[in-house]
Amino acid sequence: METHTLQQVTQTEIAQVFSSEFPLQMECGVQFGPIDVAYETYGTLNASSDNAILVCHALTGNAHAAGFSSNDPKTAGWWNSLIGVGKPLDTEKYFVVCSNFFGSCYGTTGSISENPKTGKPYGLDFPQMTVRDMVNVQKALIDKLGIKKIKTVIGGSLGGMQVLEWTLLFPQLVESIIPIATAAQHSPWAIALNAIARQAIMNDPAWQNGNYYNSIQPENGLSLARQIAMLSYRSEQEFAERFHRERIKVNGKDSTYRFDNENYFQSENYLRYQGKKLVNRFDANTYLYISRAMDLHDVAANRGELNDVLHTIDKPALCIGIDSDILYPVREQKQIAQYLPHSTYNEISSPYGHDAFLIEFEKVGNFVREFFKKYSL
Amino acid sequence: METHTLQQVTQTEIAQVFSSEFPLQMECGVQFGPIDVAYETYGTLNASSDNAILVCHALTGNAHAAGFSSNDPKTAGWWNSLIGVGKPLDTEKYFVVCSNFFGSCYGTTGSISENPKTGKPYGLDFPQMTVRDMVNVQKALIDKLGIKKIKTVIGGSLGGMQVLEWTLLFPQLVESIIPIATAAQHSPWAIALNAIARQAIMNDPAWQNGNYYNSIQPENGLSLARQIAMLSYRSEQEFAERFHRERIKVNGKDSTYRFDNENYFQSENYLRYQGKKLVNRFDANTYLYISRAMDLHDVAANRGELNDVLHTIDKPALCIGIDSDILYPVREQKQIAQYLPHSTYNEISSPYGHDAFLIEFEKVGNFVREFFKKYSL
Repeated sequence: METHTLQQVTQTEIAQVFSSEFPLQMECGVQFGPIDVAYETYGTLNASSDNAILVCHALTGNAHAAGFSSNDPKTAGWWNSLIGVGKPLDTEKYFVVCSNFFGSCYGTTGSISENPKTGKPYGLDFPQMTVRDMVNVQKALIDKLGIKKIKTVIGGSLGGMQVLEWTLLFPQLVESIIPIATAAQHSPWAIALNAIARQAIMNDPAWQNGNYYNSIQPENGLSLARQIAMLSYRSEQEFAERFHRERIKVNGKDSTYRFDNENYFQSENYLRYQGKKLVNRFDANTYLYISRAMDLHDVAANRGELNDVLHTIDKPALCIGIDSDILYPVREQKQIAQYLPHSTYNEISSPYGHDAFLIEFEKVGNFVREFFKKYSL
Repeated sequence: METHTLQQVTQTEIAQVFSSEFPLQMECGVQFGPIDVAYETYGTLNASSDNAILVCHALTGNAHAAGFSSNDPKTAGWWNSLIGVGKPLDTEKYFVVCSNFFGSCYGTTGSISENPKTGKPYGLDFPQMTVRDMVNVQKALIDKLGIKKIKTVIGGSLGGMQVLEWTLLFPQLVESIIPIATAAQHSPWAIALNAIARQAIMNDPAWQNGNYYNSIQPENGLSLARQIAMLSYRSEQEFAERFHRERIKVNGKDSTYRFDNENYFQSENYLRYQGKKLVNRFDANTYLYISRAMDLHDVAANRGELNDVLHTIDKPALCIGIDSDILYPVREQKQIAQYLPHSTYNEISSPYGHDAFLIEFEKVGNFVREFFKKYSL
């Protein structure tokens, strides 16, 4: 079992890695394998192997969805509030699985992994994976774990794209789905946003056409890409209420000179901080690959008309929108819900924008509990 | 009278340049002058010199608001549909004035102008101007033209910021105001967006800390800055209806290979085109200065509480919001209207987002006509 080193990137502790026996037939035509899959599980698979819940993570997320290590709550998983004993994804009842998706940089094989042919990271030689490829790789893990039925596949954003592809690719395995703040087809505005973020990375001379593995990665570019994306993850209203027009404090004092260009506004300083944080934990080429996979996401591709395709998803579906989301607006969530034959549409009212699915745990949780109850899941 | 050369930038033909007798006492403390002001006028000032309308332009705009040169409709001014005989800003009735604001690069003195002390462009030695400074410079032009009353000051976006400052700085001159899709204080989200655009420019090695005047300007950076801004000027809905998920055509044929990274989606290609267009007509340092002036915009600065300050604007005011504007959302326009004692709030329903004030001429025009009629302006 190969271990992957994230160069200059802090890796979240991952419980297990499964090395699959692919080659995977990728959508782009490439046969690729073997593939490592980093994953975590919470709870126990029951005797009939039909109590699994699959949690799909978003762009820069990872398999560490719940729990924490060394009793340090700071290491809690990204949906720890939703997954656990007595929580909406109740680990006394369900066997919850989360895996790092194919092409990411948190333990599952991706562009940062070692190319066995060269002994170096794949870099831009990595084939362009898609959301369907991600799901096919997750499927190998589900089989390996002996899961026969998935009660629900749940996820937000890129996670929600995987949710939709799961039920289209493996309808016999999936009992219900919960796509949150996501897209059936990546929208032209969201595509443009990703394209701009990629330009920020590729404009950085440190990117070196993707061959930066022997030096530092394109930090300015990756930071800028993250900041561009962050603007779409939050809402102007939250920024207004949170940051006002305050400037950063220099040496503990407010720097009050209005015309000092280094006297950043709190809102811009927050984004710079978020940019830096991502640089410390993520890889630039991986960002290019994942954002392109999102742009290529289209449940209708090679399947027919969008509405007809959505109409074939005849499972109970809980579609959740966020009223302040400008990236995957409620309009899109309602469209998805409209064409799914057994759908419930619930809306989170929140100032947090797209990121609300990672913040408004109680609201998400209540909708999930209600949905599970309605369909006895 | 000094002429300004826009290095590597195509200048729109400007009718006249007025060289003012400042020094201007700038908000940042600097005494600055003389200052050239490029402007255009349409119609005739009446005998009582009280039929003027002042039109204020936005970030990358210029004084060429109406008319066209050489009978070429392609050179029509940016609000040509609103300004002219029988149009809402009727040049048979009003004397319409538009000037390039202080700090811009279309004929009025700015960072690209020659610093008389060095014989080179000011570059980053230019003092940071503010919206109030812009208005004070426009005031010198108004005086020079012999205008005694301004029927209305009208403008969208940064133009609207000037509108608000005009009536606060020179209440005795201004009879009414029409701020469109603008801000009383630049919002933290809009500040963050501008800050990111500036990073895009300053990340570009061609920026050379602002000393690029002897080589090419930071084209990638300025293009990226524009693209970031463009995303906030348009709406996801317009992008969806306009571009769908189409890819660009290569050699007249659709390039259908989904995994070709150069096979751009139409929406990203559109932004690249818009980025390039701006690079051909605008200056990178100027972008830094103007966007900072927007961030510093705050009608309450040194005046007291925002609501109290707005309450002192006791002129008829037509506040126009755009329902799909994510940059200066209707929430902000309604807040402004709420505190102005004699305000009318009108909303443009449009898929075009913030840019609707430069596109939905009929809707803007109808609101303006109604407002003029109501107050016999």
